[in-house]
Amino acid sequence: MNILIKQATVLLPDGTVKETDIAIEDDLIAKVGTIAPDWHIDREINATNKLVTPGLVNTHTHASMTLLRSYADDMQLMDWLQNKIWPIEAKMRKNDIYWGAMLAIAEMIKTGTTTFADMYADMEKVGEAVAETGIRAVLSRGLIGSAPNGNKALEENKELFQTYHNRADGRITVMFGPHAPYTCPPDYIKKVVKEAQSLGAEIHMHLSETIGEVENCVKEYQKSPIALMEELGLFDCGVLAAHCVHVSDEDILIMKKHDVRVAHNPGSNMKLASGIAPITKMLDAGICVGLGTDGASSNNNLDLLEELRLTTLLHKVNQYDPLAIPAAKGIQLATEYGAKAVGLPKVGKIEKGYKADLTLFDMSGTKWCPRHDIVSLLAYSANSSSVDTVLINGKIVLDKGILVTMDEERVMYEANRCAMNLLK
Amino acid sequence: MNILIKQATVLLPDGTVKETDIAIEDDLIAKVGTIAPDWHIDREINATNKLVTPGLVNTHTHASMTLLRSYADDMQLMDWLQNKIWPIEAKMRKNDIYWGAMLAIAEMIKTGTTTFADMYADMEKVGEAVAETGIRAVLSRGLIGSAPNGNKALEENKELFQTYHNRADGRITVMFGPHAPYTCPPDYIKKVVKEAQSLGAEIHMHLSETIGEVENCVKEYQKSPIALMEELGLFDCGVLAAHCVHVSDEDILIMKKHDVRVAHNPGSNMKLASGIAPITKMLDAGICVGLGTDGASSNNNLDLLEELRLTTLLHKVNQYDPLAIPAAKGIQLATEYGAKAVGLPKVGKIEKGYKADLTLFDMSGTKWCPRHDIVSLLAYSANSSSVDTVLINGKIVLDKGILVTMDEERVMYEANRCAMNLLK
Repeated sequence: MNILIKQATVLLPDGTVKETDIAIEDDLIAKVGTIAPDWHIDREINATNKLVTPGLVNTHTHASMTLLRSYADDMQLMDWLQNKIWPIEAKMRKNDIYWGAMLAIAEMIKTGTTTFADMYADMEKVGEAVAETGIRAVLSRGLIGSAPNGNKALEENKELFQTYHNRADGRITVMFGPHAPYTCPPDYIKKVVKEAQSLGAEIHMHLSETIGEVENCVKEYQKSPIALMEELGLFDCGVLAAHCVHVSDEDILIMKKHDVRVAHNPGSNMKLASGIAPITKMLDAGICVGLGTDGASSNNNLDLLEELRLTTLLHKVNQYDPLAIPAAKGIQLATEYGAKAVGLPKVGKIEKGYKADLTLFDMSGTKWCPRHDIVSLLAYSANSSSVDTVLINGKIVLDKGILVTMDEERVMYEANRCAMNLLK
Repeated sequence: MNILIKQATVLLPDGTVKETDIAIEDDLIAKVGTIAPDWHIDREINATNKLVTPGLVNTHTHASMTLLRSYADDMQLMDWLQNKIWPIEAKMRKNDIYWGAMLAIAEMIKTGTTTFADMYADMEKVGEAVAETGIRAVLSRGLIGSAPNGNKALEENKELFQTYHNRADGRITVMFGPHAPYTCPPDYIKKVVKEAQSLGAEIHMHLSETIGEVENCVKEYQKSPIALMEELGLFDCGVLAAHCVHVSDEDILIMKKHDVRVAHNPGSNMKLASGIAPITKMLDAGICVGLGTDGASSNNNLDLLEELRLTTLLHKVNQYDPLAIPAAKGIQLATEYGAKAVGLPKVGKIEKGYKADLTLFDMSGTKWCPRHDIVSLLAYSANSSSVDTVLINGKIVLDKGILVTMDEERVMYEANRCAMNLLK
């Protein structure tokens, strides 16, 4: 199918914008520029007054936790986990996982996200939701090595790989999901690495999120979590590392050496008071940093544009440097770098040969006025309510604000029902 | 006129929500609760599935600077001011001030703000815009004592008071606006204080925004800006102090002693890399803290819900305390405390006898699902696109997303035209 996006304001890979057309053939961007008059058009999108950006990439979330949005807030981390989150998670069944993921996907598409990296249990239900809805996803089974079901979970991750990797028109990638160094003992990590390597899979893991876990790791292993994972061979797989808040200069060198890619989650790190990840240092060192929302129980939404804004603002004030993470860099982290971080080299740019994952923002509201600098308006002024149309893999999944592949009312009804049942 | 807001989810002064009705008689809330059957209704608003909060209060902005939104970003403060902002401000004429204010007011009403405190030049044009549009405002003429027109500006501030104080159905309050200690020498401050006291006016001033201005003040006067202002008698007037980022424990004691009220502007302070104001210390000391957006050239929008969220997130991470500024406290700062900060004691609560300044949020979107805790959803998940209906002084100014008192298209057209002309 050929789609023409006509008279768009296009965000180019160099961070500038240009009024032009985008031609899409099947799942790919065929051309950015004036289209030959004889090119066959199946569907034309009038993009006058629309900014087209690469689809946003959410590099770290737990989609099904959206059922727990607003269930437990303003608490100390361990009180929150032990007394609220873990007990209710223990009650979640496959149906909850599915509707939680559907709610998450509805919200993500409506806020301009076209790819998300997920880690949770019963991931085949998330795979089902991804396959149905048309979104792109990188799925991993969360593995708690210290739990009684640690080996079973690892088996499930393998099955997930066999069932879903590269499926749904290639929209799904499967990674292995060892939860964190403090929940996965060294022997277990080695087993995960071996399984991942035998399948050629990459790894998605939480690393150095809180100061406490880093201190405990140093106490137990005389090494930082990053150094410990290096020693265990984890970084011989491609690794997407979530958080990396408390990393030393030595850790950054190790991460760079092994091309570890980082999912930065400013909203979650701020809300849980975990700390501020030194991402400008990482970026200066040449490490790839993408942005993530984390789960909706610690954020509390899946709106990547909010993370983009938080990233630009937080690092400026943290470093007393108003030039830290300028507008265009923030957008690059949310798109191109995010796609690289989750291991998708042909996603995240508006360029010939890239996947047609695109977000169209309607620039007609007051927040887009006056229009001195469109890149700055997106990063610092607009919000996700400007998201008008979204394409993923060359297919329209949001059309003028309406979800095409999902029944939004039903999703909210079922998700709410599941959420309320969990409280019983 | 009697308005009944029916079956609303009402945010009560204690931070809880309750499904009930609100009766409005003229400009006041007449009752919160079930209405007597014989009460005459002129207009009924069906508020099923709507959260009704006190209207948001923007305690510090420069409305007409909205014309400069996205004109100059990602720059060092003095480079930004000297090479971009001040030269273009010097070109602004009364027409620019008016349309800039109109654009700001349109955006504020659409994002749920019902009162704003403003400081700029040609403020009679802002007064005109406020009178026409129905918003509530606290206006002050920005006074640069060190400028050649310092005395003329002071005269203009007096005229503004005489023309606009308590006018427009009492919606306008006029304060004096000495810009800052570093732009107003001591003798000038004394003159301003004398004029303000003779009229019974309060004062709106920038105080201790950057570390540099505090250091310079200490060098020149051997005193912090706060201590210097105390010595000059400024705090004998009621004072709304914007920023207060770099204040010591001694400064906080002085502020408490004189009941100085603070406008906290987290977005602007982060974007300009000014620093993080110690507002939890101030709140603990019993100081009133409201929230502000600052001007749209350093934010870059006038969306107070964003400032609310930033406030809750920023202070948690800054203090490594996930309980700092919980959801309900953030909302209180944005409403009740904001109203107190700008000197309006009968604004900012949904309670009998208070001004009928109300914002209705539509809770039907994915960001409001599931609904475990509505207060948390407002603070941490929703955004201003949920604002559905706004009442100010008992009058509907936004009706299901449509501005009632303004022609939004015309405002954007004129504001954009003014903005582009300034660049010529």
